Amino acid sequence: MFAGNVVDQRHGAPITIGYGRYAPNQRLVETLAVDDVMIVIEGRLSVSTGGSTETAGPGEIIHMPKGEHVTIQSHDEGALTAYVTYPHWQEAQA
Amino acid sequence: MFAGNVVDQRHGAPITIGYGRYAPNQRLVETLAVDDVMIVIEGRLSVSTGGSTETAGPGEIIHMPKGEHVTIQSHDEGALTAYVTYPHWQEAQA
Repeated sequence: MFAGNVVDQRHGAPITIGYGRYAPNQRLVETLAVDDVMIVIEGRLSVSTGGSTETAGPGEIIHMPKGEHVTIQSHDEGALTAYVTYPHWQEAQA
Repeated sequence: MFAGNVVDQRHGAPITIGYGRYAPNQRLVETLAVDDVMIVIEGRLSVSTGGSTETAGPGEIIHMPKGEHVTIQSHDEGALTAYVTYPHWQEAQA
């Protein structure tokens, strides 16, 4: 998964904004250090948390609240997302 | 312009998330009370600030920092956006 910030802690705004690219059939397991919103632009992503899985396609929004434990799974076609995090995810991981 | 929040101050997260629908050739003049990110899903939006105008189409991100004075203009085809604001725009306007 490739994440490219467009706006982040270097720019004075309180949020990080960027694009994310998922390869085909990629799986990412993560506990969210920040509130993270993804808008799917191309492809599909399935997000599992607890016992439930939601799949989002182009134009759909996924909100992953801070503290949530998620599995993000792309499919055969991979996925492109725009994301917004509050606060800055790179600072929260540091 | 129709704004429908999906996540906001009622849900405990620090951000508001929603969808915005712009009619054809609509113009919105606003001073941003919050940091506002729009991802264009359908159509195009032109955002002017100071002397410059940027036009964004599907998959493109527009960040309007808090305090900025902007004119948002849709075109013949209208526009659909996903938006994320920090903090909650409805509380900032109240």
